[in-house]
Amino acid sequence: MRIVFATGNEHKLREAREIFTGVEILSILEFDKAFDPDEYGKSFLENAVIKAEAARALTGGLPVLSDDSGLIVPALNGAPGIHSARWGGLNGDHVRNRAKLRNDLRGVVDRRAHFLCTAVLLTADADALVATGRVDGLLIDEERGAGGFGYDPMFVPDGDPRTLAEMTPDEKNALSHRGRAFRRLAAMTARHFL
Amino acid sequence: MRIVFATGNEHKLREAREIFTGVEILSILEFDKAFDPDEYGKSFLENAVIKAEAARALTGGLPVLSDDSGLIVPALNGAPGIHSARWGGLNGDHVRNRAKLRNDLRGVVDRRAHFLCTAVLLTADADALVATGRVDGLLIDEERGAGGFGYDPMFVPDGDPRTLAEMTPDEKNALSHRGRAFRRLAAMTARHFL
Repeated sequence: MRIVFATGNEHKLREAREIFTGVEILSILEFDKAFDPDEYGKSFLENAVIKAEAARALTGGLPVLSDDSGLIVPALNGAPGIHSARWGGLNGDHVRNRAKLRNDLRGVVDRRAHFLCTAVLLTADADALVATGRVDGLLIDEERGAGGFGYDPMFVPDGDPRTLAEMTPDEKNALSHRGRAFRRLAAMTARHFL
Repeated sequence: MRIVFATGNEHKLREAREIFTGVEILSILEFDKAFDPDEYGKSFLENAVIKAEAARALTGGLPVLSDDSGLIVPALNGAPGIHSARWGGLNGDHVRNRAKLRNDLRGVVDRRAHFLCTAVLLTADADALVATGRVDGLLIDEERGAGGFGYDPMFVPDGDPRTLAEMTPDEKNALSHRGRAFRRLAAMTARHFL
């Protein structure tokens, strides 16, 4: 089976290839180098669907994988949420995003937070499977570690003293929201195509 | 298992209850009599997701069923599509909708059309299953039959000389887009919870 992943992010592509064994994962950039749909949805699932359907329109009926994810801080009323990737004002500028979040957290005592990921597989016959993954932890003020990306250097997952950015890719994938969502989705996919 | 259906349409509720055997189907109106989320999505799947997530916010974690559907006329560039229910200007005014469509079709030779339905089940743990259903047929200028609703009196499905509105509910459900989507979704659900 071949699946087109609606992302140009090499990190996500590698992760998907490790988890969806026996499946060839193509990047949507092979179909459109400028793929970058407007994500106007109001939830992770809506935005994942928007990306998946935009990709499907380009790929002539191949199954499509997409994901959307973000960081939820209950003490900040759920922010940054679906705006996680552009929280500092520039899409994908992780340094600005972390600086803004650190500023938001000044004086906030409750540092609990969780990452959520919603992963979607649109099948060739237009059905779909959706799996979510979550990892809970604490946000710290300093930044530690050079791995991962986004808010990883500030996020200490429950049950481990390190930030996500201090872990190897395999260690992070084993407990990350995206790793969990992808593994659930891979299991659902295998069951669906039994 | 109990599932909340994000609709107040009695016809759809009855249909879902016939197809999802062994499941108690509640109406979202039992949770909010005024349930009517803004459907700003640009596809059936987006709008079905919007309805499902709006319902889930009201139901405290119960699984939620939703659907979105419409009529696609290739000769009209896919119209009325996601705007099917308000094509004549007033949401749910089927007489106006049919009058507008009949007007659009003046002078149009290719009368082929199809109904599409996208049905979504959000599970209690925030995963989701999506199934689509389709019925192909021809649009006629006159209206025949008193059953069904919407564009049914103008739509003659392939393989039958009658309009959908001339059929019994059981006959219509056996071949309709919504019946097909619901049966696929029920089968996917049974496999998912094996």
